[in-house]
Amino acid sequence: MIHRREIRPLLQHPPTGETVTVMGWVRAWRGNRFMVLGDGSGPETLQIVVNGEDFDEDTIRAIGFHACVGVTGELVASQGSGQSVEVIAKEITVFGGTDLSTYPLQAKSQTMEFLRDNAQFRMRTNTMAAVFRLRHALAFAVNKYFNDRNFYYLHTPIITGNDAEGAGEMFRVTTLDPHDPPRTEEGTVDYGQDFFGKGTHLTVSGQLQAEIGALAMGKVYTFGPTFRAENSHTTRHLSEFWMIEPEIAFADIDNDMDLAEDFLKYLINHCLDNYRADLEFLDERIQQSEKNLKADLRRPMGLIEMLEFTVKDDFARITYTEAIDLIQRSKPYKKKKFEFPVEWGTDLQAEHERWLVEKHFKKPVIVRDYPKDFKAFYMRLNDDNKTVAAMDILFPFIGEMVGGSQREEREDVLRQRMQEMDVHEDALAWYLQLRTFGGCPHAGFGLGFERMVMFVTGMGNIRDVIPFPRAPKSADF
Amino acid sequence: MIHRREIRPLLQHPPTGETVTVMGWVRAWRGNRFMVLGDGSGPETLQIVVNGEDFDEDTIRAIGFHACVGVTGELVASQGSGQSVEVIAKEITVFGGTDLSTYPLQAKSQTMEFLRDNAQFRMRTNTMAAVFRLRHALAFAVNKYFNDRNFYYLHTPIITGNDAEGAGEMFRVTTLDPHDPPRTEEGTVDYGQDFFGKGTHLTVSGQLQAEIGALAMGKVYTFGPTFRAENSHTTRHLSEFWMIEPEIAFADIDNDMDLAEDFLKYLINHCLDNYRADLEFLDERIQQSEKNLKADLRRPMGLIEMLEFTVKDDFARITYTEAIDLIQRSKPYKKKKFEFPVEWGTDLQAEHERWLVEKHFKKPVIVRDYPKDFKAFYMRLNDDNKTVAAMDILFPFIGEMVGGSQREEREDVLRQRMQEMDVHEDALAWYLQLRTFGGCPHAGFGLGFERMVMFVTGMGNIRDVIPFPRAPKSADF
Repeated sequence: MIHRREIRPLLQHPPTGETVTVMGWVRAWRGNRFMVLGDGSGPETLQIVVNGEDFDEDTIRAIGFHACVGVTGELVASQGSGQSVEVIAKEITVFGGTDLSTYPLQAKSQTMEFLRDNAQFRMRTNTMAAVFRLRHALAFAVNKYFNDRNFYYLHTPIITGNDAEGAGEMFRVTTLDPHDPPRTEEGTVDYGQDFFGKGTHLTVSGQLQAEIGALAMGKVYTFGPTFRAENSHTTRHLSEFWMIEPEIAFADIDNDMDLAEDFLKYLINHCLDNYRADLEFLDERIQQSEKNLKADLRRPMGLIEMLEFTVKDDFARITYTEAIDLIQRSKPYKKKKFEFPVEWGTDLQAEHERWLVEKHFKKPVIVRDYPKDFKAFYMRLNDDNKTVAAMDILFPFIGEMVGGSQREEREDVLRQRMQEMDVHEDALAWYLQLRTFGGCPHAGFGLGFERMVMFVTGMGNIRDVIPFPRAPKSADF
Repeated sequence: MIHRREIRPLLQHPPTGETVTVMGWVRAWRGNRFMVLGDGSGPETLQIVVNGEDFDEDTIRAIGFHACVGVTGELVASQGSGQSVEVIAKEITVFGGTDLSTYPLQAKSQTMEFLRDNAQFRMRTNTMAAVFRLRHALAFAVNKYFNDRNFYYLHTPIITGNDAEGAGEMFRVTTLDPHDPPRTEEGTVDYGQDFFGKGTHLTVSGQLQAEIGALAMGKVYTFGPTFRAENSHTTRHLSEFWMIEPEIAFADIDNDMDLAEDFLKYLINHCLDNYRADLEFLDERIQQSEKNLKADLRRPMGLIEMLEFTVKDDFARITYTEAIDLIQRSKPYKKKKFEFPVEWGTDLQAEHERWLVEKHFKKPVIVRDYPKDFKAFYMRLNDDNKTVAAMDILFPFIGEMVGGSQREEREDVLRQRMQEMDVHEDALAWYLQLRTFGGCPHAGFGLGFERMVMFVTGMGNIRDVIPFPRAPKSADF
């Protein structure tokens, strides 16, 4: 049995002089005397004082950047500044050294691209460890928020025979022999002989299945991986990402907006309250990286300042029609600075959303009641017959953070919308039946988890907020 | 905006006579006067007293089994037994009726098979709602246990280009044209032109990637879907299931066993402490269903009794060698009642595991130090050179609940084990590098989440503890 003390809680202990054993990775090794040790329990490090004469040369030589070391020693008051305690080493065990002539990481910082290619080591860097601790923080906050409010976590299927939703290009899942698949008499691939007896894909959303849950258990949420087989090479898209989709019975679009705003603020507050040191590290990192940029290319606020600003005030709430009107009366519109046209009936582009959020309202904005023609079939038709009870929440830097809607609960209206939008009724007979039998007004939304991690950590590339990113031509590890 | 009170908390309120609005589904409708309403917030229901003369005939007629109804009325002390409060209806809104001549569910109970085929409605039944509330309870407990102990939640990849682990048959993920895929000059399918630039599959385990996390952040866990493309039609196997895999640095097999036992007990205690009413319902259900069975086919204990029994005592801990010895000295062995042979070097079969757990120790059993020949390449070789530091935790009814091991941290030993077991080094160069640079003793285990849900709910078929089961020839919804 191995016994060790974790560094984060140990730093809170008084310097009693007691003998403690700590284990971790060497973050820095100064003058063959001061070893800075971190064990991943938090961003904090513990200083170990190594008196060279107490140890053999091999041990001293094996201590180096990112070497894995165990130290037993005396917990005393720190002589230097910064930490309250340090350890005077009595025994040192080097579990695993790092030959710096071949170790891919170096004490100086590496590019994000390099770290992505060496993902077996990138969590050892201060930046990525902070990002993944905050990713954990956000994931836990998601589950805690919903648990404390009597929502039930629903695992919707990853492999789906449902191809009716049309939210994007899908990955096919199969066990058929790819070289010579079985064929039907007409010569097409015979999916009847595939593993599930039909063609199957990776899910693009758990929403339709979550509606089943909400219409039985009242309030549910999903939190799981979703997939898009789109050939996007941007800093905002992944082929595999995690999504959170709450769905609530007895709720309209107003209930939905209230829930989403409260939820997003809760997530941010959870990080501010519990992961301050990691946020401070990332805040400082951004300031350093922007030091040499022109003032107008820098972020208008520091990371923590922006997070605090986001939670303290109500989000702006406007209709799509009001948004179009505001943009058409804006300076950049009049000066023809927008690339894309703005007129009622076309979707808002990123440049318009950014203007609303970053220039006009200077805070998150909820836009509701979009034209039905570019929204999904399941969104509830408003009384004007032109718009649907949909809402998007727009954030600075990120753009669309949340997309949600009240769902069409009226069977006849839903059926007509499906026909208009060419969604086959047969495939969604069960979905229509949720309206035929015991239905009610209900609503929900989707939050792309990685977008939230980007917002909270300030990372600029979505591939740096998920441990093992999947993108076109990229599925290492 | 819709305002309603949830039933579970409302039942704790004093009968103040205040006007409240509740919404839910009709569980029973007695004598056109007493409506039993549930909203999924818990297993509890609220009695609504409906004075027929206060409502029009259409409303009264629309109230029926599983109709979705909103009621505004006066919260008063209950006249009957069971509940403390009831509501005298003043207004009733029927959101969605259920025409009982066509509604698939009926007030009398249906078979589990029928409910599986009608999964759009099965969560509306008392049994399945209780199961899925407990599934939620266990999922939340998983996250809370690890969060409170400074583990970080790691999302390991679902789509993987890693095909080296060999834990089972895999599903292929592709976007190639299935009718006429691109071919290489040799005529084989050209995966270089596939979405990820190579052949990819759905993950069978996140363990190897979790080791990356542990060797940087100290303690991590995964909790996500995993897949097996095996043609199993049993009540214990799914093609898609959720798995929990903690991985800890600075840990040996003893730390690993302690963590697993403590974790399993925590999960069970969380349900006993917070979901008593659901457990009581399921306990009663099992007793009813076993009423007509012969005594020796019934469970030896009630559900809650068994859960309490599991958490109160230490698990038995024995080596594989001791297990073989115990079985060879057992009555059923001597009387040749076991179907499979028992000798050192062969794996334990379910019948042997059941004897150990249910007959001999009468509690969960941890078996450790299995022969290396039928265990995975990454398990740490013991000093005897014959066994590895692996452990399985065996539970009554379920069999193997947890499988774990200390990982081989010695690069030379690991490399030799890979060669012996025909695991290609090239594909796992990054895994070997975790040993070359900054490695240390580490360990972890895997818990099949659905097996735990089966144990806690007492359900006999794994397809009834996941909302949308995937199995050969079955991927509906």
